[in-house]
Amino acid sequence: MPASISPMLETHPHRSSHPEDVARCADAAFACVEACKVCADACLSEERVSLLTSCIRLNLDCAEVCAATGSVVLRIGRTDPQPLQAQLAACIEACRDCPDECRRHAATHAHCRLCAEACDACRAACETMMATMRHAGESEADTR
Amino acid sequence: MPASISPMLETHPHRSSHPEDVARCADAAFACVEACKVCADACLSEERVSLLTSCIRLNLDCAEVCAATGSVVLRIGRTDPQPLQAQLAACIEACRDCPDECRRHAATHAHCRLCAEACDACRAACETMMATMRHAGESEADTR
Amino acid sequence: MPASISPMLETHPHRSSHPEDVARCADAAFACVEACKVCADACLSEERVSLLTSCIRLNLDCAEVCAATGSVVLRIGRTDPQPLQAQLAACIEACRDCPDECRRHAATHAHCRLCAEACDACRAACETMMATMRHAGESEADTR
Amino acid sequence: MPASISPMLETHPHRSSHPEDVARCADAAFACVEACKVCADACLSEERVSLLTSCIRLNLDCAEVCAATGSVVLRIGRTDPQPLQAQLAACIEACRDCPDECRRHAATHAHCRLCAEACDACRAACETMMATMRHAGESEADTR
Repeated sequence: MPASISPMLETHPHRSSHPEDVARCADAAFACVEACKVCADACLSEERVSLLTSCIRLNLDCAEVCAATGSVVLRIGRTDPQPLQAQLAACIEACRDCPDECRRHAATHAHCRLCAEACDACRAACETMMATMRHAGESEADTR
Repeated sequence: MPASISPMLETHPHRSSHPEDVARCADAAFACVEACKVCADACLSEERVSLLTSCIRLNLDCAEVCAATGSVVLRIGRTDPQPLQAQLAACIEACRDCPDECRRHAATHAHCRLCAEACDACRAACETMMATMRHAGESEADTR
Repeated sequence: MPASISPMLETHPHRSSHPEDVARCADAAFACVEACKVCADACLSEERVSLLTSCIRLNLDCAEVCAATGSVVLRIGRTDPQPLQAQLAACIEACRDCPDECRRHAATHAHCRLCAEACDACRAACETMMATMRHAGESEADTR
Repeated sequence: MPASISPMLETHPHRSSHPEDVARCADAAFACVEACKVCADACLSEERVSLLTSCIRLNLDCAEVCAATGSVVLRIGRTDPQPLQAQLAACIEACRDCPDECRRHAATHAHCRLCAEACDACRAACETMMATMRHAGESEADTR
């Protein structure tokens, strides 16, 4: 399935050398924002909310970090890869910590299980994007 | 096509009386965030960027307003409808002004055309959500 | 005390006709974002968190709405006042609902009391900004 | 001058071991959000906007990264330092790249000069926070 933001990226005057990775990363990041927001709110509705405060905090952290990442990755007209690479690294970390906690509650709370899956997908998309950028940087260095 | 966040909403302990409207509204809002961010960045890459500054500003406004809306609408455990209704109204306005400007450039810039479509879809989803809430409020008042 | 963002606004090529109102509104909005985030996190650390879930939700709503408002109000190069006016209205509503709930816990939780004060300040700054814009619009209409 | 969010942090049930560093980091991050938003909008109003597109992009990146950082650092009830550390690292990078570009235009555009100063202040506050956390982690390890 093509990423939903792909058709827009094709209309950008600056053609990304890896538009599908950008689109998948952005879509996964915003899907993770949505999942983390729902998980936090669902945890607040659980009877034993006091056992879920770490989960809620990591959900909120992850949502904010992913929103920044999704926004930064879409700015494909950039010439400077550093801000994106650093934000991808932060996102990979947030998308490791949040599902680690979510999975402790996955058996009893389905929203935690689904949230962990959204985080995993986002982390994988960020790692792919990171690898693509590193590879592109190396290729560029080779041809100098 | 079901909204992508729908399965998560079904796992929320508080069952929304209109989960599909919530999910469509959130998905449309975050899709519009993505579209507006790409349109702003694409405008910055156009040769005649000086003619597109209003478009860029409205893109950025719309992205920020839609991000807040998408976040607020997903908080379905709420008991107080006011913050959501007011934010939906702001989002409907942002999703009217941005495409009005985008459409002035749609013939020459495909990203403006696609961004306008994303705004339209978000506005429609917000209007549906607003109507659903108003109807729910009236039904509730009737049964008192 | 002059608003902290005032010196930057004075360097903007487009001179706002009411720069101090803009600066105060933006500063109050981001101060409210900070207060709401701290209040939500402090509520999560309270022993009886299950009694504070409405407060946490309204904190999170208010933080997101204020962040959008602060961003939109700073875009003083705009020509189109509508998106800002609609977002100010949403912010005034969020900054009414959140402190209403916070004040129910103000006697026992000082963070709720301080958060309510930050919301009040933000609402007042938004109302001033709204009145200034309305007045500016009327003056402009008079001179046509 | 004490950071403006300090009094709220003192009311948090979980007492941070370094509340002033947290408060300064959050205040600096949101001040940088404001500065970057104004700089981007001011650049859009400059006659030669086409020479400032890199600056605008880095402003927007930096604003989004700083907003996430300010939000994450305020969550002092957390038990897991990793998401914050990774986001601080991303913020330090964004607050290095943005002022590097801004300073190329500082002689002609005062908003670029002031924005660079806000980024510097945010980077310094993030570095202090990072060092404090590292030190706290080492002390904790020592006492085990």
